[in-house]
Formats: sequence, C-alpha cells, structure tokens
Amino acid sequence: MARVLFQFEDGGDVSIFAVPGENLLEVARKANVAIDAPCSGNGSCGKCQVRLVSGMLKSEKTRHITQEQYDHGWRLACASTVESDVCVLVPDIAAAYKSRLKTADLSSPEELRVFEQLQKSLDEAGLSRTGFIRTVSLTLTEPTLDDTMPDNERFSRALAASLGAERVAVPFHVLVKLPDVMREGGFAVKCVVLDRGEAPEVLDVFPEGSAQAVCGLAVDIGTTTVSAVLVNLETGALLSKGSAGNGQIRFGADVINRIIEQQKPGGVDKLRSAIIEETLIPLIDTLCEDAGVSKRSIYGLAVASNTTMNHLLLGVSANYLRTEPYIPAFFELEPLDTADMGLSLAPGAKLLVAPNIGSYVGGDITAGTLSSMIWNTPELSMLIDLGTNGEIVLGNADFLMACACSAGPAFEGGDISCGMRATAGAIDAVTIDPETMEPALSVIGGGKPIGLCGSGLIDIVAELFRAGIINGKGKFVREGRRVRWDDVGMGSYVIAFPDESATGRLVAINEIDIDNFIRAKAAIFSATMTLLESLGFAPDDVQHISVAGGIGSGINIKNAVYIGMLPDIPLEKYRYIGNSSLAGAFAMLTSADAARKLHEVARSTTYLELSTQPGYMDAFVAACFLPHTDASLFPSFLRQRDADG
Amino acid sequence: MARVLFQFEDGGDVSIFAVPGENLLEVARKANVAIDAPCSGNGSCGKCQVRLVSGMLKSEKTRHITQEQYDHGWRLACASTVESDVCVLVPDIAAAYKSRLKTADLSSPEELRVFEQLQKSLDEAGLSRTGFIRTVSLTLTEPTLDDTMPDNERFSRALAASLGAERVAVPFHVLVKLPDVMREGGFAVKCVVLDRGEAPEVLDVFPEGSAQAVCGLAVDIGTTTVSAVLVNLETGALLSKGSAGNGQIRFGADVINRIIEQQKPGGVDKLRSAIIEETLIPLIDTLCEDAGVSKRSIYGLAVASNTTMNHLLLGVSANYLRTEPYIPAFFELEPLDTADMGLSLAPGAKLLVAPNIGSYVGGDITAGTLSSMIWNTPELSMLIDLGTNGEIVLGNADFLMACACSAGPAFEGGDISCGMRATAGAIDAVTIDPETMEPALSVIGGGKPIGLCGSGLIDIVAELFRAGIINGKGKFVREGRRVRWDDVGMGSYVIAFPDESATGRLVAINEIDIDNFIRAKAAIFSATMTLLESLGFAPDDVQHISVAGGIGSGINIKNAVYIGMLPDIPLEKYRYIGNSSLAGAFAMLTSADAARKLHEVARSTTYLELSTQPGYMDAFVAACFLPHTDASLFPSFLRQRDADG
Repeated sequence: MARVLFQFEDGGDVSIFAVPGENLLEVARKANVAIDAPCSGNGSCGKCQVRLVSGMLKSEKTRHITQEQYDHGWRLACASTVESDVCVLVPDIAAAYKSRLKTADLSSPEELRVFEQLQKSLDEAGLSRTGFIRTVSLTLTEPTLDDTMPDNERFSRALAASLGAERVAVPFHVLVKLPDVMREGGFAVKCVVLDRGEAPEVLDVFPEGSAQAVCGLAVDIGTTTVSAVLVNLETGALLSKGSAGNGQIRFGADVINRIIEQQKPGGVDKLRSAIIEETLIPLIDTLCEDAGVSKRSIYGLAVASNTTMNHLLLGVSANYLRTEPYIPAFFELEPLDTADMGLSLAPGAKLLVAPNIGSYVGGDITAGTLSSMIWNTPELSMLIDLGTNGEIVLGNADFLMACACSAGPAFEGGDISCGMRATAGAIDAVTIDPETMEPALSVIGGGKPIGLCGSGLIDIVAELFRAGIINGKGKFVREGRRVRWDDVGMGSYVIAFPDESATGRLVAINEIDIDNFIRAKAAIFSATMTLLESLGFAPDDVQHISVAGGIGSGINIKNAVYIGMLPDIPLEKYRYIGNSSLAGAFAMLTSADAARKLHEVARSTTYLELSTQPGYMDAFVAACFLPHTDASLFPSFLRQRDADG
Repeated sequence: MARVLFQFEDGGDVSIFAVPGENLLEVARKANVAIDAPCSGNGSCGKCQVRLVSGMLKSEKTRHITQEQYDHGWRLACASTVESDVCVLVPDIAAAYKSRLKTADLSSPEELRVFEQLQKSLDEAGLSRTGFIRTVSLTLTEPTLDDTMPDNERFSRALAASLGAERVAVPFHVLVKLPDVMREGGFAVKCVVLDRGEAPEVLDVFPEGSAQAVCGLAVDIGTTTVSAVLVNLETGALLSKGSAGNGQIRFGADVINRIIEQQKPGGVDKLRSAIIEETLIPLIDTLCEDAGVSKRSIYGLAVASNTTMNHLLLGVSANYLRTEPYIPAFFELEPLDTADMGLSLAPGAKLLVAPNIGSYVGGDITAGTLSSMIWNTPELSMLIDLGTNGEIVLGNADFLMACACSAGPAFEGGDISCGMRATAGAIDAVTIDPETMEPALSVIGGGKPIGLCGSGLIDIVAELFRAGIINGKGKFVREGRRVRWDDVGMGSYVIAFPDESATGRLVAINEIDIDNFIRAKAAIFSATMTLLESLGFAPDDVQHISVAGGIGSGINIKNAVYIGMLPDIPLEKYRYIGNSSLAGAFAMLTSADAARKLHEVARSTTYLELSTQPGYMDAFVAACFLPHTDASLFPSFLRQRDADG
C-alpha cells in the first residue's frame, strides 16, 4: 500500500491509498481528483502535468516535459506509476475540478450585445418573445355556498380558458399547494405554465403579488466547454452568464473517447455525474449567486449540445452512435423533468433539448443555425462554428445543408501545450513585431497571462507566419531570443517567460501545438469548401458568413483568412456572432415561436456526411499548410505577401 | 423524567421518556405506538385499553372498565397520566399498528365471486376488459445504414400507430433504457402504456418475452378500513386480496376529527404517513408477498375513497372541506405519479382516483354506484353502502341521486366495546336460542372468537331483540346466565366468557354498544327514507336494493330488516354485493370503458344534502328504536312478532 497525497495550489489536499505500480492518473480519478486529460491518458496531449513533491514515481519522460521541467519534478500523471508514498502537486491549470469552480465569465458588453442583436433579429422575423415556459395571472371567482366548484376545477378551467386550451395538466406538487395558495392570494394567483401541446402543464402556482422570480437557464454543452446564461423569463432580462470546463474532459477530449468511457461498467453514471454534478450544478450555483436568485426559481433549462453530449447528459446509451448503423437514441425530445436528471431547480422545471439531426450533427448546430438567422435570408449564407466538432451550415430561406468535421479541441485550448479556455488570464489577441519578434498581448481580465485561448492561438500562428518565424509547414525558421530548440530539434516560441506569466511558468507554443492547430484549421477549411462544392458553389457566391464559437471575445477574421482557415472573401461579408449554440438555446428558451422554428429548421436541414464525400480527405491534406498548398485560393494572402516584399 | 415501557403481546416492546403528568395516549403517539383511539382520546370510545404491569398511572375509572378489569390493571390510555416509571401491556386488540401487520384476509370463494359477477355485468353492459393501463407488443423494423431513424422516434411512431394516437409521451426513465431494451429484444418490445388522452404515456418498456409481470392494485380507502385487491393487468386474474385498519384511526374515528388533526402543525405529513407508510405500504407488501410478485410490477393504483380520505392521502389540505362554503380541492383528477406519493411501485406507476361529487360524497360512492350497475338498469334501484359514512344512491339508467349520512364506525367494529374488523377471529353471524338464551357463533377463520364485526353485530342485536332479551329501546329486560348488570345498572350480554374467547377476555355487548348501533342503523334507514321521499317514491317502488360494505362475508338481510335498518320490502329484491367501492376501483383499474363510465356516472349524479332536508332529523329520531317508533313501516316484523306470539 502506498499513500498518495494530492496537493492543490490553493493549499487544499486529498489523499488516497494506492497499490504500488498503479497508474497515477487512475489513482487521481479514484480519489475524485479531476486532472485534465483530454487524450484520456494515452500520453498524447501532455495536459496532466503534476509536480512530484516527495516520494517516488516511475515516469516515462515524454516530449511534453523538458529536461528542466523534469528536473523540477514535473511529470505526466498518465505516464507515471506510484512506487512509494508520494506527494504530488496538482497545478491549477491541470486541476479540472478546481478550475471549474472558478467559472464565472466576465460579462462584457460585447457578449450582451450578441443576445440583444439576436432578440432584435427574432423580433424582425416576427417571432414573439413569449416562451413555452411563461407566467399567467388569473383572478378567480370566490367560491360561495351557491358556487362550490372545487379548487382544482375552478383553477384549471380558468387557466385553460385563459390559454385557449381545452384542459391543463396539474401535477401533484401543484395540486397539493393549490387550496392554500388560492386563498392566500384572495383567489388571485400567478402560475408558471409549460404552454405547449393539447394540455399545457402547470409548473408552479403562487399568490398574485408573490416575490417569486421566474427564471430560465440556456446552456450550451460543448465537448470541451459548457456556457450558460440565466434569464428572467418574465422580463427577458439577462441576469448572469458564465462558463465552465466540461467535467467529462478527463474521460477524453472527443466524443468517441467519451462514448468508450460510457460503455465501461458504471460509465453511464460516471459521465452523467461529470457533466451534471461536477459541471452544471456548480455553474448554476455560481450564476444564481451572481444574479441573486435561488435555483428554485429556475423553471426551464434549454440545452443545445451535440448528439453525443445530449445522450451522455441524460444517461442514455451513446453506444449505438458509435457502431454501424450509427443510431442515436433520439433526435427530438418532448420536454423532460429536470428533477429526473438530478437537478434541484423549481419543482416542476422542464428540460428543453435542441433537436439533433444526425449522429454527429446535434442540437448545438441546429440551435446555431437558428440564431445565425440563415433561415430568414434570401441570400446564400454560411455558419461556421469553431469547436471541437466544427460544424458548417450553408443555405438561406429556401434550403439548409450542414456538415460536421472533427477539428479537435485546439480552438478551446485543448491539444495545445499552453492552451486554455477563454477565461481570465487567457491571451485572446497577439501581435508580433516582425523586426524584434517581441509579442504584444491582450489578456482577458488584464494582468499577466496564464495561457492561450482559441482567438489568441489564431493570432499567434498568423503573426509567427507573417513575421517569417515559422514557414508554411509550421516549422520554426528564424532564430531569436524567444525561439528555442529542444534536444530533438523541435522549435518553440516563448510567448511569456516565467517572470512575464501569471503562474511563474513558461508560456510557449511549439511545433506540435502549431501542427495540431493547422490540422484544426484545415478541417474547418476543407469542410467549408467541400460543402460549397457539393452544391456547385464557390466561396464568392456566399453573401454572409457568420463565424461562431466560444473561442474568445472575438476573432481576428483577417488573421483567420491569412492562415487559410476561412475562405478568402471580402472581410465585410464576415461577422463574428460568438457562441451561436448558446444564443440558439436562449432563443428556444425565451420564444415559443423560435423553439418551433428550431424544430422546423432541424427537420428541413439536409446532412452531408463528409467521410463519404469524394475528395474530402484530399482537400483536408491540401489544407494542412499555411495558408494552403494551393496559395491561389488565397489571393489576399498573395497580395499582402507581395506588399510585404 | 419517567420511563414508559410499552409491551406487546408478541413479546416486543418500545420505551420512551415522559414527563410526569403526561397523558399516556400522547406518550404512546410520541413513541409511535399506535394505540387505537377512534374518539381521538376524549374517553368516549373505550378502545385504548392497556394493562398496567408495574409502576403508577393516575387514571380515571370510566364506564368502559369494570371494577374487575380495573383490579386486573386495565386502564384507558387516554384517561391516564404517567406518575412514575411504568410498564404497560398494549393488547393486540388495542395495538392498531400491530393489528395492521397481520392484515391478509382469507380470500374466500364468495369474495372472488363478487369480482367475477362484476366482470360479467361489465361484459354484458358492453364495457371492454382493457384498462387505461395496458400492455402493447411491438415488432419494430431494424435500423440499417439506409434507415437510421433514432430509437425514440422509431419506437414512438410505431407505438402511436398501434394505439391510433398522434403521438406518445416517453418519460425519462423509459427513454434511458430504450436503446438497450430494443436491441435486447431484437427490436421486439413489450411496453406498458397509460392509453388515455391525446398522447398516451409509456410507463415502461421491456424486451418481448421478458418475465416482467404487469399488475395493478385496486384499493378502497375507508375511514376505518382499507381493502385492496392485486390484479394481473394482462390476464385480469385476481392475485391476492387483503385489508388493514386505516392507520389514521388513532387520530379520530370520523372524517371531521381527521381534518382537525391535519390542520395542526405537521398534521398533513402525519395523516399522510399514517395512511401511506403505516397502512398502504405494509398492505401492498403483504399482497405482493401473497401473490409472489414484486411491488415494482405494480403499474397502476386505482383508489376509491371518500372526499376527506383522498385529500388526506394526497396530503392536500382538507381544511376547506370543513368550513363554509365547504370546498374540496378537487372532484376529478388526472392520473398522478405514485412516486410523488412516496410509493415505490413500478417507476412509471400511475394513481387513478375515483371522482368525488361532493364534499362528503366521494369516490367511494361513485365507484360503488359504478359496480352496483344501477346506471345500467331501467328499473328503480338503490345502493345502500354501510360504512362509517353511510351512502345511499337511488336511480336507474335515467337518473342518479345520492346522499350520505354519518353512521359512525359501528358497522366496522368501532364504537362497540367488543367490535373489530371482519378479519380472522371476528364473529360474523350469531343466533340466540330464545329459550336458553345461549348463542351459536360463526367465527371468521373458525376457532374461538376475539370480537364482533358488523354482520355479527346486526345479528346479535336482532337476536337479542327477537328473543326478548332487549326491548325496542335496546335496554336489557330479561335475566339469565349471560345477562349482567354493572354498578350503575347498565345491562350487557356475554357472547363469550373468558374461557370461550380467543384472548381469555370477556366478549360482551352492552347497552352503550347497542345504543351506538341503533343510531347507526337509524342513520341508514332515515337517510334511505328521506332520499326516497324527496323524489316522491315509497320503498315498494324500488325493484332492487344492493347492500354493500366490508362488514363481513355477508349480511343477514332478514335480521337487518327486522331491526329496522333496511326498508321492509320483499327479501328477494335485496342482494349483498360486498365492498362495492373496492369493486368499483377494480373496474376502474381493469376497464377503460368502466373508468370513463365512472366519470360519466359521477357527473350525472345529483347530490342530496340531508342536513338541509326538512324532516330528516325527525326521521332519524323516529328510527332510533327497534325496529322503528312507527312499527307499521315494518309489516313483516309485525307479522313475525304476531306469529311468535
């Protein structure tokens, strides 16, 4: 028996007994110490770095650890086995659980504007601002000896009449409180209803004038990141907004690894608990605290997520998604009770799930399509959603076609040695002086940087390329103070020396990181081109491209085009719409018309399976170069390069 | 501090600390020792007899305890206060909780015949034997690469088509298991559905060929007694049958006392727990054990009960039933989830509640009306339901009118010193030799008697009266070995001397018991007459009278007429239909047509409020005599008395 003590940077610790020879990452999982391991522990991502404080680990030295770091005790947990009693430090950047606890985003005016703009667009499209879940006030006639209609009948009939429904459904918890509530309110009551279908359901009832808030939560559950916005359903006001790392990340960075984990014994509960107990509940608590409301006042939870994520969220087997003939458990779902998911929201709270349209094209993209408003324009438009699963939709008011590509987690900071989510401390924009090769950084929240988020990553690759520090293959070709070479000759660029960083550790990007990024951008670009070509369109035919993704507060489109990630069309045709999936969930929550439109959009979207599309793999390989092996696709790049001499 | 030790006849005990001066019945309640106290502890019923084994109690000697009994340590718990450490014996007959644990009735062929006869009548009336809750088998097409419809859509559409519905509702617990179940069964599945309304709800699904039983439980929740029958919903077979004392009895014998208790702090939970945890759950466990099925296989619970009982069962405030303008919380309810009631039946199990039609005319009488089949005959018919609440329905296929009267618990053994429910050990029929005055007893289950149930009570009063041992006022007027007089001159008749009884205690009926019984029978008779007269009918106009009630395996109608409880019409017009309320719940559970008919019957029944009916009180007083102050109403009595000389 060996005692393993995990220490955290905040001074906390957890200990557990292990068998000598046991894998340290496995030991951490058993101790419920959630160390980030996007690659699920196969040594490829290098995220699970911990520092050996005392005792003995048997560790492979991998390419992710420099000799200097190794000498200071840094090890990959997944590549280490326990040999004796040990004490290891789990740094904040690796402690998924810890980092998830400090999740509240800064709610910038830019972010709020995305929702305001969306509401304006929905208004213009004629979609009402009344959601399926809404309040209704009723003034009932008081019973007398001559009018002895029972409470339930009196209430139900008045409500049905008010909603224009034939009947309403009164669940147990409402029935039980009804007689007292009716009399407390002098027979004037306010109720929360799910106004949908033949028999609208009463979710709650209280005396008119009660201070009970009626809120809803829109959530985007991404493979890597979970984002949410808390809304007052009566006023439509945004109360708070935040994001958290998806707690399932330690079971693998991509959906396939998650499905594999779910299939193991106890896997269903493990994955569900990681997203619900470890991620959603703390996030909801934080948002409620920020907004000063109780989570008991949340009556609706609108979720947009990819097909695998919504299966894992509900604890529904995703196994059959992975094996031929690749069958999801569901596309569309009727509203479900959130209590069944293990969430303690308002007693009658409902879960609304954005519909999937394919095994690998889910509610995130249908929600994104909704909020992109592509379906409401006559002009050919595109949505490009940058995420672990990149998704692209092409169409207009007449047709919609979607495809998905596996971009990997680079846009959300995964697979990048200094990568992180777009939260405080993340570098979200970079310029590099082509002469001095010195960087100028923009850091979310100000101060010294911790790491690099998606938008910063696009910038740094573009700037390194523009400054001639790396070549089209992503290899380092200039020398300088910030360019380093390791013992096998791999180059890297130091974005922040230890004294320049918030953690005292080096922030650098190496050739493997750049290679991972190039593959991510190539996936997006080749998918975009393949989708266009499948219908005989060229990039110039597209009038509007909405770029979406929770990769930062914005994206430098010019840089993204410069490195060959987005088609080279006039920049004014582009707009960045932030997290379109979250925005779609928000629309589904706050507008019944939008929710109906979402299902219409889902049913009318054609899915293009890229893997069976001839030429897609060639297009991908050709795009694995900066900007592209066929530079003629990027005339603006050629012009700029010529201008730069 | 005084330590109070409660001992039971089976050797078990419970102890609790009490404050000297504390009421013993209250102490028992705090210790969760449920001593029967139908009068709620005001000293009037005499049921809460315990025997002081050691220590000191300060006890009033009441009329319920003879000097001999007092000398042997017998005390009324409600009339005793704790003075020191004490040990008291709680006899089985007073230990409500204990007696409820030995509840399974003997399922006699007579009892089964009631249900068989009912099913035949329902068949003849054209009501199908398919209940709202039923099974459906589906053979689904297997998905292929060319047919990738998701599991939920594949299942739901096939089921909806099979049910002729537009859509079905798939709740969370079904969704979660669906993918595996579909594949386990080779895409042949069996599901349990609530086939009702626009969107039938799926309660469960399993692979075709699974051994899962699909059962339902019909329950009559009376103020005093709870009876239930467990049914296989696929075959219609009766699996087991049983009854238990309503655990709420210790909070009062009648509905008003129960409502008063519910209003006290914590009262809602106390009353609900008494019926659910203390009564229903043990009863269900016993029935399931008898039938050899798991309670997880119960998908439907059909409950017939009076208005107060169904409010208390659900934990809905019954307060407003009691105060002007006497408003129930509901008449009709949509099916509710039994899980919300705290019952662990099948995950999707539903509660169906027989509709109420008035604050004091509930689902028990509407269910009784259904099973009496009055609504299906052209001839003027009546249902007389003998219970704590006596209920009478008059009508035919064209009209139905109902009234209720407060008979008290005498028919179920309450308010009678040797009274008990119709379970093993109860005397259910008696004859008395007019010469020797010796009784001949029929005891349920055989053996020595413990006490007297409703049918035995009717017999003994009739036989005492016929033999001239008591007079028309119920007073003792003959002397003999079995007639005794107490110190205040009250007469009693010894049905069994200590050596003749199963408990070694005297089984006797005294003038107070007889008086209680006379008031009960007077309530029934005067209500019957008032209902008839309100529509201008005489008893002779009635072609059929169904007498119902769980008062024993039968009732001697001739005796009931002889003592003026039932109208004096030809005996062949009477039939005893057992527990009509339970039978109605059974019909509601096993036939959707019958359940619909039940709601139709409820809506078309007119309620006659007796208390506002001129002449009702006079009629009641006139009936408080054997057979009646106006003996001319009972010509057959007069004829028999003349014949007897």
